[in-house]
Amino acid sequence: MIKKKGILFVLSGPSGVGKGTIKEALLNTMDDICLSISATTRQPRSCEIHGEDYFFVEENEFKDMIQSDKLLEWADVYANRYGTPRDFVLENLHKGLDVLLEIDIQGALQVKSKMPEAVFIFLSPPNLEELARRLCNRGQDSEESIDLRLATCEAEMAHIKYYNYVVINNRIDEAVEKVRSIIQAERCKLNNLSLG
Amino acid sequence: MIKKKGILFVLSGPSGVGKGTIKEALLNTMDDICLSISATTRQPRSCEIHGEDYFFVEENEFKDMIQSDKLLEWADVYANRYGTPRDFVLENLHKGLDVLLEIDIQGALQVKSKMPEAVFIFLSPPNLEELARRLCNRGQDSEESIDLRLATCEAEMAHIKYYNYVVINNRIDEAVEKVRSIIQAERCKLNNLSLG
Repeated sequence: MIKKKGILFVLSGPSGVGKGTIKEALLNTMDDICLSISATTRQPRSCEIHGEDYFFVEENEFKDMIQSDKLLEWADVYANRYGTPRDFVLENLHKGLDVLLEIDIQGALQVKSKMPEAVFIFLSPPNLEELARRLCNRGQDSEESIDLRLATCEAEMAHIKYYNYVVINNRIDEAVEKVRSIIQAERCKLNNLSLG
Repeated sequence: MIKKKGILFVLSGPSGVGKGTIKEALLNTMDDICLSISATTRQPRSCEIHGEDYFFVEENEFKDMIQSDKLLEWADVYANRYGTPRDFVLENLHKGLDVLLEIDIQGALQVKSKMPEAVFIFLSPPNLEELARRLCNRGQDSEESIDLRLATCEAEMAHIKYYNYVVINNRIDEAVEKVRSIIQAERCKLNNLSLG
């Protein structure tokens, strides 16, 4: 009898590379992977549900989670705090379910230090010119902000060595197919199976 | 610029598990992997081409290949000898091409000792009962021979620990898809890419 362990897949990469799009496409085609849910101190929007979209917590609660090492990673974004609750991830892994975490590079490096056995996938732009084009096209960012993102991206590429896999997001459907293959292959790895 | 190294994929498993079927299906759907070509001392059949179906060699030549370590593995099958020429594999890998080698478990273990960096995929029957059913159905084997194969299979399963991946051949299309995913994923592995 062969039983599969749950695996944490960390999908990461520079800002603007298309992490969110790839994640959505994956979730639409795979019903056997669950998404990690973040904790945040920001106010819920009217349509958001606690425990589905986010775990909404008070500032004090968030501080406690940091101090008792209950977050795999966390960051302050403007006045709000965001983090990845360790228990939610571990509970699913223990059930044999795979968990997907989409996160920026700084967050991924924090997760790596706490769960080095997770599978780290670096989503890379084909090149910096293409990333610049995408950031311009999405029209959310000022020229100054785009310059900053490009400089950051160049620096962040140095962290690629901490990842297990590199997927170049040239065409979305091909990139999704590659990430799906990585998930499928990891499920067949001897290390991720318990035999007996 | 990201360049891919060539990878040797070793598809192996007990006799009767369906290695040949999976290999054919893979080659039909993937045009970017080349099949390893065996050397043999047996006479070519009329339709067979040297360097395509086999490398047909004389007994003396085969002995030389063994002695000069030019075979990744070899075995005697009745009066004939079969082996995997190392040079053919290495030449393709150096070109950046991936090579597929379909082989029995004893052969795979020999390859493992010479090229531990290859990717070893163990094709497993869902269970021994199912393997027995398949061996009976293909009608090539006597009852005695089937008993022997089943006993061998049970012993061979102990070698699963030397493999990187396990694919259970329950349904052929699913097994092919898993092997394809493994090939695809390995191509995205940081270790198999040269960055710079």
